[in-house]
Amino acid sequence: MDKQAMRAAILEAKAQKGITWEQLGQTIDMSPVWTASACLGENSMPAELAREICHTLELSSEVATALQECPLKGSNSEETVPRDPLIYRLYEVMTVYGESIKQVIHEKFGDGIMSAIDFTLDVDVEKDPKGDRVVLTWNGKFLPYKRW
Amino acid sequence: MDKQAMRAAILEAKAQKGITWEQLGQTIDMSPVWTASACLGENSMPAELAREICHTLELSSEVATALQECPLKGSNSEETVPRDPLIYRLYEVMTVYGESIKQVIHEKFGDGIMSAIDFTLDVDVEKDPKGDRVVLTWNGKFLPYKRW
Amino acid sequence: MDKQAMRAAILEAKAQKGITWEQLGQTIDMSPVWTASACLGENSMPAELAREICHTLELSSEVATALQECPLKGSNSEETVPRDPLIYRLYEVMTVYGESIKQVIHEKFGDGIMSAIDFTLDVDVEKDPKGDRVVLTWNGKFLPYKRW
Amino acid sequence: MDKQAMRAAILEAKAQKGITWEQLGQTIDMSPVWTASACLGENSMPAELAREICHTLELSSEVATALQECPLKGSNSEETVPRDPLIYRLYEVMTVYGESIKQVIHEKFGDGIMSAIDFTLDVDVEKDPKGDRVVLTWNGKFLPYKRW
Amino acid sequence: MDKQAMRAAILEAKAQKGITWEQLGQTIDMSPVWTASACLGENSMPAELAREICHTLELSSEVATALQECPLKGSNSEETVPRDPLIYRLYEVMTVYGESIKQVIHEKFGDGIMSAIDFTLDVDVEKDPKGDRVVLTWNGKFLPYKRW
Amino acid sequence: MDKQAMRAAILEAKAQKGITWEQLGQTIDMSPVWTASACLGENSMPAELAREICHTLELSSEVATALQECPLKGSNSEETVPRDPLIYRLYEVMTVYGESIKQVIHEKFGDGIMSAIDFTLDVDVEKDPKGDRVVLTWNGKFLPYKRW
Amino acid sequence: MDKQAMRAAILEAKAQKGITWEQLGQTIDMSPVWTASACLGENSMPAELAREICHTLELSSEVATALQECPLKGSNSEETVPRDPLIYRLYEVMTVYGESIKQVIHEKFGDGIMSAIDFTLDVDVEKDPKGDRVVLTWNGKFLPYKRW
Amino acid sequence: MDKQAMRAAILEAKAQKGITWEQLGQTIDMSPVWTASACLGENSMPAELAREICHTLELSSEVATALQECPLKGSNSEETVPRDPLIYRLYEVMTVYGESIKQVIHEKFGDGIMSAIDFTLDVDVEKDPKGDRVVLTWNGKFLPYKRW
Amino acid sequence: MDKQAMRAAILEAKAQKGITWEQLGQTIDMSPVWTASACLGENSMPAELAREICHTLELSSEVATALQECPLKGSNSEETVPRDPLIYRLYEVMTVYGESIKQVIHEKFGDGIMSAIDFTLDVDVEKDPKGDRVVLTWNGKFLPYKRW
Amino acid sequence: MDKQAMRAAILEAKAQKGITWEQLGQTIDMSPVWTASACLGENSMPAELAREICHTLELSSEVATALQECPLKGSNSEETVPRDPLIYRLYEVMTVYGESIKQVIHEKFGDGIMSAIDFTLDVDVEKDPKGDRVVLTWNGKFLPYKRW
Repeated sequence: MDKQAMRAAILEAKAQKGITWEQLGQTIDMSPVWTASACLGENSMPAELAREICHTLELSSEVATALQECPLKGSNSEETVPRDPLIYRLYEVMTVYGESIKQVIHEKFGDGIMSAIDFTLDVDVEKDPKGDRVVLTWNGKFLPYKRW
Repeated sequence: MDKQAMRAAILEAKAQKGITWEQLGQTIDMSPVWTASACLGENSMPAELAREICHTLELSSEVATALQECPLKGSNSEETVPRDPLIYRLYEVMTVYGESIKQVIHEKFGDGIMSAIDFTLDVDVEKDPKGDRVVLTWNGKFLPYKRW
Repeated sequence: MDKQAMRAAILEAKAQKGITWEQLGQTIDMSPVWTASACLGENSMPAELAREICHTLELSSEVATALQECPLKGSNSEETVPRDPLIYRLYEVMTVYGESIKQVIHEKFGDGIMSAIDFTLDVDVEKDPKGDRVVLTWNGKFLPYKRW
Repeated sequence: MDKQAMRAAILEAKAQKGITWEQLGQTIDMSPVWTASACLGENSMPAELAREICHTLELSSEVATALQECPLKGSNSEETVPRDPLIYRLYEVMTVYGESIKQVIHEKFGDGIMSAIDFTLDVDVEKDPKGDRVVLTWNGKFLPYKRW
Repeated sequence: MDKQAMRAAILEAKAQKGITWEQLGQTIDMSPVWTASACLGENSMPAELAREICHTLELSSEVATALQECPLKGSNSEETVPRDPLIYRLYEVMTVYGESIKQVIHEKFGDGIMSAIDFTLDVDVEKDPKGDRVVLTWNGKFLPYKRW
Repeated sequence: MDKQAMRAAILEAKAQKGITWEQLGQTIDMSPVWTASACLGENSMPAELAREICHTLELSSEVATALQECPLKGSNSEETVPRDPLIYRLYEVMTVYGESIKQVIHEKFGDGIMSAIDFTLDVDVEKDPKGDRVVLTWNGKFLPYKRW
Repeated sequence: MDKQAMRAAILEAKAQKGITWEQLGQTIDMSPVWTASACLGENSMPAELAREICHTLELSSEVATALQECPLKGSNSEETVPRDPLIYRLYEVMTVYGESIKQVIHEKFGDGIMSAIDFTLDVDVEKDPKGDRVVLTWNGKFLPYKRW
Repeated sequence: MDKQAMRAAILEAKAQKGITWEQLGQTIDMSPVWTASACLGENSMPAELAREICHTLELSSEVATALQECPLKGSNSEETVPRDPLIYRLYEVMTVYGESIKQVIHEKFGDGIMSAIDFTLDVDVEKDPKGDRVVLTWNGKFLPYKRW
Repeated sequence: MDKQAMRAAILEAKAQKGITWEQLGQTIDMSPVWTASACLGENSMPAELAREICHTLELSSEVATALQECPLKGSNSEETVPRDPLIYRLYEVMTVYGESIKQVIHEKFGDGIMSAIDFTLDVDVEKDPKGDRVVLTWNGKFLPYKRW
Repeated sequence: MDKQAMRAAILEAKAQKGITWEQLGQTIDMSPVWTASACLGENSMPAELAREICHTLELSSEVATALQECPLKGSNSEETVPRDPLIYRLYEVMTVYGESIKQVIHEKFGDGIMSAIDFTLDVDVEKDPKGDRVVLTWNGKFLPYKRW
């Protein structure tokens, strides 16, 4: 079973049972974003967690095996510039604020980057009478450039 | 004076005086990321703040005028996929986690998007003995899709 | 049932019954453009409206479920520049008049954008002896840029 | 004098005199969007209007000559997908609603297109206590496909 | 039946019967280029002509229905620059002579374009002892730019 | 003197003298399209004709030399898909009718192409009470595919 | 039977019988490159040769019919820059030596091109103790640019 | 002096003296294609030959130094698909015949490629009463794939 | 059996048997990277090795035949810029250090390239208390540019 | 002084003094690849090393200041696919062997990537009677994917 079939099986079972990513994440004590990313085929899952997911969703062990494989990431879409408006806004922020973020990170940390591997990302709701707000917290290890 | 000349003048003065974005932002009571974005030509600045920046950096009023103009955003680079490793990591996160973020936002807020206009972004240092971490906090108003 | 299958089912039923988007929209008291966009898979529909659509078109509840899902928008085509002449003209207007529209909006509203989310679009016929005219009315909330 | 130099001269004079597109358009009894498009180099202007613009802005007759030339349209930017957020929203609407607009136009007019040549576009402010709204009115002649 | 299936059915029947586009066009009193464009899925056909085509080719009424639909034009290929040598030569002429054609049309007609909608195109053979020549006659209504 | 400088010199002199491509072509007994293409830098001109052009426009012999050089064609624009509406229509016709033209040419001539080298193109006005029409006549030698 | 099915049938039969392109070409007295190009779907084959190929490979007359059709060339790959290392080297030579070849051809022949239609290409082995060499001989008619 | 300046100096001197690539190549006992490629900035030249070229063209020793540098090849153009018709034909042959060439080379040599480094290319004239022909001879060492 | 089917069969059998590329390579006395590249369809395998692979994985002789064919390399992905983070890092190194590598190779070897055909690549683990390191050793024959 | 001017100054001084990257690296006790990357504008250099470089090359302190700035990496070229043959081979290896390298790294290290930041790269000569070989040693820290 490849990642595409795994993904379809999980999305169908999740919809039929009416389980959210939040709830699914709680069954394995992980965040909803990471749980979703593994179920959508963008991350690999340890065996124990994969079995638990399949137990919750009543899916076969083939799905659990597929969840453990290291994925070829980024292959769900071939768009260089995303077209979905929600995902495009992430791209737009990179375009408008990318250089400013770069300069402030260099100012605070020196030459290097924020890791996207040793990295977590959480989505929170901030209540606001003028309209609730989405808060994304990106947390990545600073990696200084090695010189040799 | 166009935005390119304005940007060059500010960067040169800032380097000569050894002022950081953090410090420059404090003189106008704004965050370093937003201050940098306006000085780099990606945002417009109210007249009073623009004058204060020029006062601090000892720049002419032409620079202050240019700071107030509405920019053609995103024009500092023509790359569709960014090549700078730090900025690329922002793109990579969108590629790997974009769909997961989308699903979790829809789960928590319903159909709509996170605004990139009614939006703030802060860069913080999280001390960690295994290596300090970069924390980016993205905060955007949730905009539900209008139906008509 | 995914959005592609939903879309095909709706288009086939609509053709067989000879119902227009105008008529279909009237059954749910919505505009034809929005109704079409949801049926083509570019918007999500509230449960009650989705059921009504399926009732009118004599389609299964699976279609109604699919209509309610938040879509990955813009995925019906992979063209960056559209090739269909009617759709291309929308692109051409953006190319020829985009900067002018931007300047006039900034002149009238200040720095910010016209929302494409809190947004409606209507198509009307303007009778004209020299040839009827298409009138598109775009109506989007002005969103001023937040500074922080 | 080419269109780039003409455009720069007009924008500089307009800024120095503090004249808006609305006002500039009124001096020649034309709309602000069309006036801007001609001054930005995306349309040609009749001789009389061009002279009036140069009179108002105190510019040389070379500018008036340049205003009358047929431009190579769309050459101010080389971006296939626009990056400026305001202009991008026009692109996004085309992506999300383009096919729906096409279907409704065909439903109301038959096979053909909305002209982008025999075409006008106006920007209006719609006052709204929840936030003012931008209204764009696109008005183009319907052109039926010729068969031969 | 979608345009792809329609197209395949027509091409197969046409090949089996050994009918040319010229002959097929004569049965409906239309030109071979336009007849081919409708049968290949790039134009819509009036009901009467569609029925005649299906009668000639002994095809089902589903094909006739599909022939009448307004197509999403330009979707048979996703190539931005065509690779087929014959079609590429059309692109090459646009590249090499496009600006010259533009200047001569402006010289003869003023500012505006040649319509590709109110448009006909014919292919003729010009006998020549040094090698026969292909003559393409493009005939499009001149559309002057509207000013407003 | 390179082709860019040559082109600029010719366009300036032509504008100052108020000469059309039609008239300029008549001085060398050539068509306006070809004359324009050589003056714009897309074709090479025989020495005698080049001298005549320079004589008419009162330009130096350096221009005449530049006119004789074999150009790197297609280098005036880097757009893959043209953005100017007039030139885009040529692209649109290729997109919509390209395959039909190909099929009809093969039907009339066999396997091969229409040359874009042994080729002429003329622009004519067709008077029409409903609006004058642009007629482009493309005339290229048919080249059959060699087999070996 | 379309070109894709034809191609697959020929490649399978050729592999099962262990016949080379050289041998297949000899049965119809044609070169191996041209024979391969027709069998791979990039050229059309006269009826007699097509029948002979099908006789040799024991394939049905449908294959012979498909071999005679004029193909949409270049459609086997959608890569603009080829990725296969052997084919990429042809691209690399064009990139590195293209302008030099152009200058030398103009020097020897005047303004014009080497035809890729009235064209042959052969692959030969040149024995060499330091490593055998591949020799490609490209032979195309020179086509001078027509002036009109 | 960089390669661009070197190239311009050589082309100007070559034009003024009326020397061909053939003649220039003879002064250093090299082929015209290779001589042109080095002078155009696509190859490096040994010191002795570079001095000879500068002697012939009466150019400074700076040009000779620039000729000896290893170039960043392929940087004279940024086009992925070439637009000049003569150079495009090289691309077209790769598109139409690339896969056939690959199959025949594998058939004659096994798995590997034709080198574009240990490589020569010559341009010859083949006299023909029906029109002279261009003959390009590509000669590259066969490099078998290493296995390890 | 084509390369896609071959690849799928090998990957499935390898997963079921729990064999690593390291182990599979040892059965044929080859490196894991090369073994993987041939099994994934990017290299051809000699008959004897192919049979041994099929023996180990208990696969049919059709797989062994497919393993021996010369592949169309690089066809497993159509991405110009890779999106998978691990593979992207290879691209990033090329982007950041490519020109430096080029200059140092020219300094040590003269004008020429490192072959990617007469080439080996090994992956090793370097133990490190601060985190193990990946060591890639690229070993390619230097090929000097031929001059002629 | 920006990175472009810095780079030009260093390359000119280095050429005039006839110093190699190897020698320049030795003056600061760093490798030639890293030294080149900083001098070409792709890495930042500590103040002390920058001063030493400027001392050796007799360059002004402005160059030393520019060497210390964090660069916008990857901006020396805008090519997505590199055209220089030596640099292209790095791209080709990624295309042909990228997936194999990925699988073997995952096999040896688990899910994660090889860092391109905590990374070194050396170029060595391997003497070989059949032709010397280039050896590139890539050494990057393995970064396991964080789960949260």
